[in-house]
Order: sequence, then structure tokens, then C-alpha cells
Amino acid sequence: MSNKIAKYISISEEIINSIESGEYQPGEKVPSETEIISTYKVSNTTARKSLLEIELKGWAIRIKGKGTFVLNRSEDVHLTRTLGSIYTTREGFDEKLIMEGFKPRNVILEKEVINAGISAEISGHHYIIEGKVVRIHRLRYADDILMKDETRYISLTKCPKINMLESTKSFFAIYEQVYSLELEGIKQTLSTTIFNPDTTGNYFESAIPLPVFILDSAVFCKDGAVVEIEKSFYRGDKYKFSVISNPEI
Amino acid sequence: MSNKIAKYISISEEIINSIESGEYQPGEKVPSETEIISTYKVSNTTARKSLLEIELKGWAIRIKGKGTFVLNRSEDVHLTRTLGSIYTTREGFDEKLIMEGFKPRNVILEKEVINAGISAEISGHHYIIEGKVVRIHRLRYADDILMKDETRYISLTKCPKINMLESTKSFFAIYEQVYSLELEGIKQTLSTTIFNPDTTGNYFESAIPLPVFILDSAVFCKDGAVVEIEKSFYRGDKYKFSVISNPEI
Repeated sequence: MSNKIAKYISISEEIINSIESGEYQPGEKVPSETEIISTYKVSNTTARKSLLEIELKGWAIRIKGKGTFVLNRSEDVHLTRTLGSIYTTREGFDEKLIMEGFKPRNVILEKEVINAGISAEISGHHYIIEGKVVRIHRLRYADDILMKDETRYISLTKCPKINMLESTKSFFAIYEQVYSLELEGIKQTLSTTIFNPDTTGNYFESAIPLPVFILDSAVFCKDGAVVEIEKSFYRGDKYKFSVISNPEI
Repeated sequence: MSNKIAKYISISEEIINSIESGEYQPGEKVPSETEIISTYKVSNTTARKSLLEIELKGWAIRIKGKGTFVLNRSEDVHLTRTLGSIYTTREGFDEKLIMEGFKPRNVILEKEVINAGISAEISGHHYIIEGKVVRIHRLRYADDILMKDETRYISLTKCPKINMLESTKSFFAIYEQVYSLELEGIKQTLSTTIFNPDTTGNYFESAIPLPVFILDSAVFCKDGAVVEIEKSFYRGDKYKFSVISNPEI
């Protein structure tokens, strides 16, 4: 049994390697069940499992009666970020990149104080920050690739003079450590869009159309006040978002 | 104060209506702060808040020194689905669509029994279902628009003969009610890609490139066994995913 498992995995890995090396191009077929049976001298069960494995890993798609075709996901090196967790949000964007072996760099495009508060709609719900708010628009790079185009609106009532702080810490760490805020929760919504090379406001210098995640989020304190609203764009060819389940909700 | 809030919201709504009606096209500028001040006889604070409101609602993007430009999101009628929650996953895909006023329809493309189990990789973690598995590939429509291309792999050890059941219930309800399984959690990962009209395996009949969410998920029982693995494609122009925060994790 364990030999059998090793066999179908080794066949699938060999085929995935050929996809990665470009031998099988997106849209092309990988070897069929029959071809795998005759090439590797395996049973049809093993051949089918090899193809399933390739499909389940996201490299190809099986179409009934036609074959298994390579998907256009060859640059499939995605960083994974966890949603729905204050704990992981506490780790900064830069810290995570450093742990993953990248050199982070930030460019502040704009920092402005808005006097009369702001409101944002996230999945049909209205979130309001009253009073003075600072809007910080940053471009966030990893090894000189723009990964995230980030705009945050932070309550200056909750975090006076946060706009004057120079810090390499995450804003979450600053809210908790500098301003002693008790964070209660975070509401996040992901949508997706395509940025074409000529899309207005597109800072991602991609020569081809780019799938982009749009993250809208609001962070609340235990007293119910909204401390931060964020609207950011993540490169969809570089990121995945995963969710930790909550069996109680 | 309350009149002031009403004013900037009504101005932003008027401009959003003009975007929706096509008066301002994607890539075009909406009225500037100065133009809003003179048209509506309001203060510059109100004018700025109107533009911020439009930006925060995702209709436009402000570019420093250039103006506020309409984003290409005019068909922005998104259905929101919640991730990380067994509770909301228990409600079926069809049930949710009905509640939202759509007529759901399902087309089963394939239903096959795999004898030797399967494994899938979700965010670097390997999930395995041992023994017989049924693979069900369905196209899920709302009012004749394909919303989701769904493939589920379900353990026939945990759910014997589930492939023979005819039911309009969600699989989650079936796991719990018919097979009395105690579900412990769900691990979900979202990635995004672009389906071009000629992408192989693309069942979405869109004449233009389509942003697509790819949802990979695994569902476990309290005994640790994986009962279901899913890989589905959601139309990215029709869906948003939101996350309920979990302050404890």
C-alpha cells in the first residue's frame, strides 16, 4: 500500500516538474491515463490517482472525454495570509515578508489628516470613524516587487499623533502597545478584480492583466469604536488568503 | 452636524448614481473638490468627504494631484459569502441564492467513484481521504448565469452511498442529519486568477476576461478524519467573501 501511494505521488511530481519546466504549456494536455499506464507500468488506479493529484494541486484541470489540461498557473508561488484572526494580523506585513526571506520596502505616497471623520461600507454594513482621521497611502514592496497597495484610515481620537510616529512595528502592535487599545475584532471582505496595464490608479507595473484581491477591513475596540478602516490591493498572482475555521459561529 | 453628514452622503450618492448610469465611465474623472464646492455650495470639508465616500465604497480611486477616477467595477452587484464558519456553510448554496431572490439550477457534469482515496494540498498542508471517495463535479447557476464551478470529493467511508442520494439539501446538512457526523472545522483558502474566454476548462461563458476566485477547502470531523475536499471556481465579478473575526486566534 505505501509503495502504491509513493508511486502515484512520484508520477504526479514528475508531471508537475514537467509543467514547471515548461515542457507542458498552459492549455496543453498532460499524459493520459493510458499513456501513464504504459509509460510507468502501473495500474489504471495508480494512473488515475496521479492525474487527480495533479488536478487537486491546482496544476491542471480534467475535462470529461477530452483529457487533463495544464492551467495557466505556472508562477504559482503564493504567499498565504490568514484572515479572521487578530493574532496573525498583529504580526506586521514586513515581519511576515522577512520570515519568508524577502526584503520589505515601503513607500509612503500620502499622509493626510481628515478633520470630519469618515465612513466606509463593508459588505453592506456602514463603519464610521468620528473625529479626526489620518489617511496613510503606502506602497509595500518585497524585493522590489510591489505586493500591496495599502490605504489605511486611523482614528486620531483613539491614537493621537500616530501620524507623527516613526516606527517599523505593525499598526496593530502600535494600537495595543503604544495606545493600550483593547482590540475586539476585525471584519474583512475580499473581492477580486483585474488590473490591466492601463488601469487608472494601478501602481503594479505588470505588462499583462493582473488578478488583484481587494481587501476591505474594519478593526474595532472592545468599546465598539472603529479604530481603523483599510482598503488595500494585493497582487493576486502572489497571494492566497486562508481562513481558520470557527466551529462555534 | 447631522445635516452635514446627510449632505456629503447625498452628494456621493448622486455621483455614484452617475457612475452606475454610465455618465462617468471607468477611467474618467468624477467632479473635483473645487467643482463639488461650486456645484453644491458646500464647504471643502464636505466636498472632500463626498469624494472619500465614493472612494471608500470602491467606485473610484483618488490619485494625488490628478483627481478621482472611476474604477472598472460598474457591475458591482456582489453576493457575499462568509468564510470560516461551519454555521453559514451549513446553509446550502441554493438556499442562499433563493433568499437573495435568484432561481438556482444545478447541472451535474460528472459523478464518479474513486476507489483508492485522494489527497489534496491546501496552503502547504496535505489533506487525505482514505478509502472510497465520490467525486461530484457540478455547475451551479443563478437565473441561468453560471456562478460556481464546483468539484467535491466526499468520503464514502464516512457517508456510504451519498452518491445515490437525491436531495436538495446542502451536503453539510446531509453529513450532519443523514450520517450524524460531528463536524469539527473547515479549512478554506482563496486564490484568484483570470479566466480568458479561451481558457481551457472555463465553463463561464464570458466574452471578456473574468476574475475568478478559487476556493480550496477541507472539512474535518471531530475524530480528525477529512469528510470532504472541495475545489471550486466562483465568478469574481459576482462574489465577495467576508470573514467573521475570531479574537481568540
